[in-house]
Amino acid sequence: MIATGRHFLQIPGPTNTPLAVLAAMAKPTIDHRGPEFQRLALEVLTRIRAVFRTRKPVVIFPASGTGAWEAALVNTLSPGDAVLMYETGWFATLWSRMAARLGIRAEFLRSDWRSGADPAAIEARLREDRAHAIRAVCVVHNETSTGCVSDIAAIRKAIDAAGHPALLMVDTISSLASIDCRHDEWGVDVTVAGSQKGLMLPPGLSFNAVSDKARAAARTSRFPRAFWDWEEMIAANDKGFFPYTPATNLIQGLRVALDLLEAEGLDNVFARHARAAEATRRAVRHWGFETVCRKPSDHSASLTAVFLPEGHSADALRRTILERFNMSLGNGLGILADRVFRIGHLGDFHDLMVAGTLAGVEMGLAAEGIPHRPGGVEAAMAFLQGNVSGGATAELA
Amino acid sequence: MIATGRHFLQIPGPTNTPLAVLAAMAKPTIDHRGPEFQRLALEVLTRIRAVFRTRKPVVIFPASGTGAWEAALVNTLSPGDAVLMYETGWFATLWSRMAARLGIRAEFLRSDWRSGADPAAIEARLREDRAHAIRAVCVVHNETSTGCVSDIAAIRKAIDAAGHPALLMVDTISSLASIDCRHDEWGVDVTVAGSQKGLMLPPGLSFNAVSDKARAAARTSRFPRAFWDWEEMIAANDKGFFPYTPATNLIQGLRVALDLLEAEGLDNVFARHARAAEATRRAVRHWGFETVCRKPSDHSASLTAVFLPEGHSADALRRTILERFNMSLGNGLGILADRVFRIGHLGDFHDLMVAGTLAGVEMGLAAEGIPHRPGGVEAAMAFLQGNVSGGATAELA
Amino acid sequence: MIATGRHFLQIPGPTNTPLAVLAAMAKPTIDHRGPEFQRLALEVLTRIRAVFRTRKPVVIFPASGTGAWEAALVNTLSPGDAVLMYETGWFATLWSRMAARLGIRAEFLRSDWRSGADPAAIEARLREDRAHAIRAVCVVHNETSTGCVSDIAAIRKAIDAAGHPALLMVDTISSLASIDCRHDEWGVDVTVAGSQKGLMLPPGLSFNAVSDKARAAARTSRFPRAFWDWEEMIAANDKGFFPYTPATNLIQGLRVALDLLEAEGLDNVFARHARAAEATRRAVRHWGFETVCRKPSDHSASLTAVFLPEGHSADALRRTILERFNMSLGNGLGILADRVFRIGHLGDFHDLMVAGTLAGVEMGLAAEGIPHRPGGVEAAMAFLQGNVSGGATAELA
Amino acid sequence: MIATGRHFLQIPGPTNTPLAVLAAMAKPTIDHRGPEFQRLALEVLTRIRAVFRTRKPVVIFPASGTGAWEAALVNTLSPGDAVLMYETGWFATLWSRMAARLGIRAEFLRSDWRSGADPAAIEARLREDRAHAIRAVCVVHNETSTGCVSDIAAIRKAIDAAGHPALLMVDTISSLASIDCRHDEWGVDVTVAGSQKGLMLPPGLSFNAVSDKARAAARTSRFPRAFWDWEEMIAANDKGFFPYTPATNLIQGLRVALDLLEAEGLDNVFARHARAAEATRRAVRHWGFETVCRKPSDHSASLTAVFLPEGHSADALRRTILERFNMSLGNGLGILADRVFRIGHLGDFHDLMVAGTLAGVEMGLAAEGIPHRPGGVEAAMAFLQGNVSGGATAELA
Repeated sequence: MIATGRHFLQIPGPTNTPLAVLAAMAKPTIDHRGPEFQRLALEVLTRIRAVFRTRKPVVIFPASGTGAWEAALVNTLSPGDAVLMYETGWFATLWSRMAARLGIRAEFLRSDWRSGADPAAIEARLREDRAHAIRAVCVVHNETSTGCVSDIAAIRKAIDAAGHPALLMVDTISSLASIDCRHDEWGVDVTVAGSQKGLMLPPGLSFNAVSDKARAAARTSRFPRAFWDWEEMIAANDKGFFPYTPATNLIQGLRVALDLLEAEGLDNVFARHARAAEATRRAVRHWGFETVCRKPSDHSASLTAVFLPEGHSADALRRTILERFNMSLGNGLGILADRVFRIGHLGDFHDLMVAGTLAGVEMGLAAEGIPHRPGGVEAAMAFLQGNVSGGATAELA
Repeated sequence: MIATGRHFLQIPGPTNTPLAVLAAMAKPTIDHRGPEFQRLALEVLTRIRAVFRTRKPVVIFPASGTGAWEAALVNTLSPGDAVLMYETGWFATLWSRMAARLGIRAEFLRSDWRSGADPAAIEARLREDRAHAIRAVCVVHNETSTGCVSDIAAIRKAIDAAGHPALLMVDTISSLASIDCRHDEWGVDVTVAGSQKGLMLPPGLSFNAVSDKARAAARTSRFPRAFWDWEEMIAANDKGFFPYTPATNLIQGLRVALDLLEAEGLDNVFARHARAAEATRRAVRHWGFETVCRKPSDHSASLTAVFLPEGHSADALRRTILERFNMSLGNGLGILADRVFRIGHLGDFHDLMVAGTLAGVEMGLAAEGIPHRPGGVEAAMAFLQGNVSGGATAELA
Repeated sequence: MIATGRHFLQIPGPTNTPLAVLAAMAKPTIDHRGPEFQRLALEVLTRIRAVFRTRKPVVIFPASGTGAWEAALVNTLSPGDAVLMYETGWFATLWSRMAARLGIRAEFLRSDWRSGADPAAIEARLREDRAHAIRAVCVVHNETSTGCVSDIAAIRKAIDAAGHPALLMVDTISSLASIDCRHDEWGVDVTVAGSQKGLMLPPGLSFNAVSDKARAAARTSRFPRAFWDWEEMIAANDKGFFPYTPATNLIQGLRVALDLLEAEGLDNVFARHARAAEATRRAVRHWGFETVCRKPSDHSASLTAVFLPEGHSADALRRTILERFNMSLGNGLGILADRVFRIGHLGDFHDLMVAGTLAGVEMGLAAEGIPHRPGGVEAAMAFLQGNVSGGATAELA
Repeated sequence: MIATGRHFLQIPGPTNTPLAVLAAMAKPTIDHRGPEFQRLALEVLTRIRAVFRTRKPVVIFPASGTGAWEAALVNTLSPGDAVLMYETGWFATLWSRMAARLGIRAEFLRSDWRSGADPAAIEARLREDRAHAIRAVCVVHNETSTGCVSDIAAIRKAIDAAGHPALLMVDTISSLASIDCRHDEWGVDVTVAGSQKGLMLPPGLSFNAVSDKARAAARTSRFPRAFWDWEEMIAANDKGFFPYTPATNLIQGLRVALDLLEAEGLDNVFARHARAAEATRRAVRHWGFETVCRKPSDHSASLTAVFLPEGHSADALRRTILERFNMSLGNGLGILADRVFRIGHLGDFHDLMVAGTLAGVEMGLAAEGIPHRPGGVEAAMAFLQGNVSGGATAELA
């Protein structure tokens, strides 16, 4: 069967890229050593800071988010260093595995993948570390495999309360520009992000926002590094250039993505995501299903991971929905494989796309014969119709 | 408020153009006298015939559908000629006004805009016309202002039963490539169509499929004409050219639109439209509203026009839906102004777009405080989830 | 052989469309009855006037330039009326044939296709017409088949000197936005134009700028008309709408084309065209060839038509150039067929495109074994390198 | 002054991207874990091998070419290892600096940047290395800063003649798909490439073609690595996936780039580049200038670096050409800064673009008052017109 209409890309990233961003990327490549690119680079490097809520440099790599994870580690640490990580889910696990592969001793605070990171547990562990062997605390802000958010401000407080000098490194790959991320205010040392989620670009750019303390750590880091090195990048960026060829066309697209975010206003962007998330959860509850995230305060605004009843295959459901309804949903990862599907509600979307998405899930459930209470879409609509973007934040609190 | 996400263009045309068609249109313009365009033109002129279900020439004008109406009239008739038209709604009215402005005596069979044309009435009138003064019967196949379809095969039979030599000219602007149109089999003499509906292109091309009898009539027609003249066009088309500059980029897009229609298969295209229409009507009935089309057999597969309860403004509803939900709906035209809104469900769409569309209407009704029974979207989904494209035709009969 | 690189579309229209214009056309179609389109239409209908140098309405048809010719005739004249036309070349001939087909008595002042229209001849003929039977003088400003420009201001003076009330209708299809056209100052009554030349759009829009006198004539015109009728159009345009579906996506592109023209400044646009034309003629002279236009003051700034030496086929040359150098040139039309090729130097181009174009011609001449003096490109460059856009006008005078 | 017409991007990469490639990149992002992407990945990963002339895996990184340099080093070597590099120019220097930063002992065979690498010197040095301390020989195939090509087959023979087990790693960033690169036949162990040169894509993808011997070396390599690790990538690639988010939209573009290269035929692609290069050198010689590359056998087919006469600034010339003629040229790098400009003639181009490019240089020379002999463009044309793509190889030998 041929797919008609627009594909619903409702995975938790890459997201539905706005046509204006795609068009900007499709403009001819320009000379990355010429004055036009220089103006573009200086502009984008400045404007991107507002999205990270920082006055510090934001390094842009021509690489995916995994590269930005590696950059955070190899710029600040040395082989054999200890870091404290928190098992929020699959991506936290991958990051810890990467650390281990790089020769870092990644201590992993275990959890059941159903909540954000526990600040108290972090604080307790840091208090034990009297020798300050732990060089960094690494946390995933919005765990894309589970839909649980960690309270980064609270983790900052936990580190401070423990009087511990560890760096705070935060993966905001699926939260930046969807859920508030405050690099400076929260005292984050390295914020890791990617282009293909809230920034509404295709994959291919990733980011490190870097505190002074992180840059100081980089001066004593003994990891061999070249491509990921911050200082060479920051020095070149100051003049509007890059030490090696940047992903020019994606940067052309980034300018338009920033235009869109600024036009809407970041607070409105966050409220829109929160609204879509609440609508989605109401549908999920109505169907009689459970979200992976167990703690209401930790619910993600950018995706919702949903358990299917025992005995039903989430991957079979996703396949049916893709074939019959032309919609991609996220799969369960790691221990959640085939038990969970994930609904992305982030990036460039609006209420009718949310309703269409939930309709696709509900019709897919019926098609697959998975027991559920019909009416989830109406439950979502009942919430949405009473809420408009911008005014939604308070009601959701 | 900035509009995020994809606009839902749910007017009954222009329709949501597939990105592949837009991309084809955005390819550089080519020399309309060169060999590349010649190959394109010969290919498109041949392939378009299948959509009209004809082996006769299809003339493509670089003009909108209104131009193709005029072409049909001025090629076949002479000033002062009589034609019989049927008042299916606003567009039939406009066509009759055009005829009058051109000096044609357009007799208008009156109706209440709530059904298709009545073959019996046409037959009766033709039988009266013993002198055969009436030169043509002009009918709108799918009346875009009301969502009522006329039975063209039956009208053909009515003309034949009356033993009348009138030409049959049919406006299929909002039916072609959405609802079956059979130029040859139904004995249509001129089929009028446009690019911006089922053909999924932007506006700017329009069409006349032309029978031998229509071409014969053109030989004695006394209307002054140049731009709209068929014979010069057909002669040039035979070699892959046009007598004046064609709308090259739209024709580039048309090739891709034909690719899409052929890949899906016309019968599947029609079934998909019929299915969306039935789903839409179920939502409308559930809300407690009445469709403009009163006769089930005449329901349009490409749009549904809906009465609001007395005392409510359809235009206010449409404005709210546009501003809050980023969706355009069609307005009430002529005597239906402000009393009716129209939902387009034609062109490049799928079930989730239908569900999102209906969700937008239902949330708009709530936002405007218009009394209705919630649950229309679920009613539509209950129908859709049991039907897959291709198998739907029988059930809808 | 596969064509690599960008095609050089050096016909005298359609022209090389800027990518920004193509991108604007490829944006999704919007509701032509909604507020966004209304804003677009009001803006474009206002801004386009500056290009015509008029304060009067400019009507935009979703049609090619041939349609705008017809619109000029049928709005202002009545069947049987006499008009005076001037045989500048192929397009003047086509326009006169159109007039004849419409039942207008088109008197054609004969000429040899090697100059613009002769104001003295027009004046002489009008003086003879004491009864003022001639209702309009119709002239092609820039004859696209020959590369000769007519002096419209002088023709206006000739009409006035003869004390004749005829309307002045001017085809600026290949001059508007390339060569100065002054609707108001020159006392033109109908200026006819198209989208695919200096306006840098694909074909599909055409224009009539209309004087008060022309509108007055329309009130007594007895041509049957509907699609081409000005008054209905102007009335709808005043509110930002159209009486029938406009070519929305081309109008989206037109806005960007106007942005580009305004950013460069019309005078700079004209100077750039004049410069390219002079460079082209220097190459042609260097090769030892003759331009069709014999009168230096009549040389076109937007195209150059060139005679090949006797015994050589211009079409064979064009074919070779297309196949070997991926460049389209214009063919000889009518009596110039196969004897002449035409170089378009209009629209979105710059000096290196001119040089590349001339190199293609010169290499094609060599490939075809057509005797010529090599060095034409250098002759063009010698001119170009001493001239910068904007300062060129004076030197060319 | 506003830039009109198409920008001439004549730097030695990024190159003029074909519009079809840009359009493919601008298609909506798809699910990188779904079946559509899987099919795309399997297809592209297979087809790309033909461009490298290898049957071994080609790893695609979502990164620029610099990343692929790093990947080559960290997969095969260990900290403290020795490698032999050859100072062909700026990029060889950068690669050796990167090696040093990573803790590799990079021995650098000095040269004057005016030829390719000397196989005899490499052989001599390897013969001295009786202990086989040198783990790899790293050579830049086409030195983008100088326009000199190294004979990789000869270097392979030199290594073999020395009976040395060192790996051979070759940077083909500006040669792949422009100049023949034979990974298998030449016994290359790691071929490094990027997307933005002969592959005609924007920057953002880079490549390692990997021999069995290189993979074996990777098993004992002790560099910490994760993002750049081949084995995880190859394992995932075998199923059509990637271990982390790939640059999906660039991969969509890569498919179209492969279509174009295959349609033309790689041998024709190489002949076309060789032809443009010869034409360019003829212009340069005619002007009276010297190319950086001193050895005729080492001339690059993808770029030409040109010395200006003493006392003239190449950067001032480039600036003038950019501002007046809308063309970007490459700058002199390292010791060649401001003395040299570089003309890129690679990627998607044809003869008229070459002629236009050379015209821009020649007019720029005149504008800057740099002494030169006019007529370089004609000298280039004299060569081009006698040569057609495909038949050119022999004549150039």
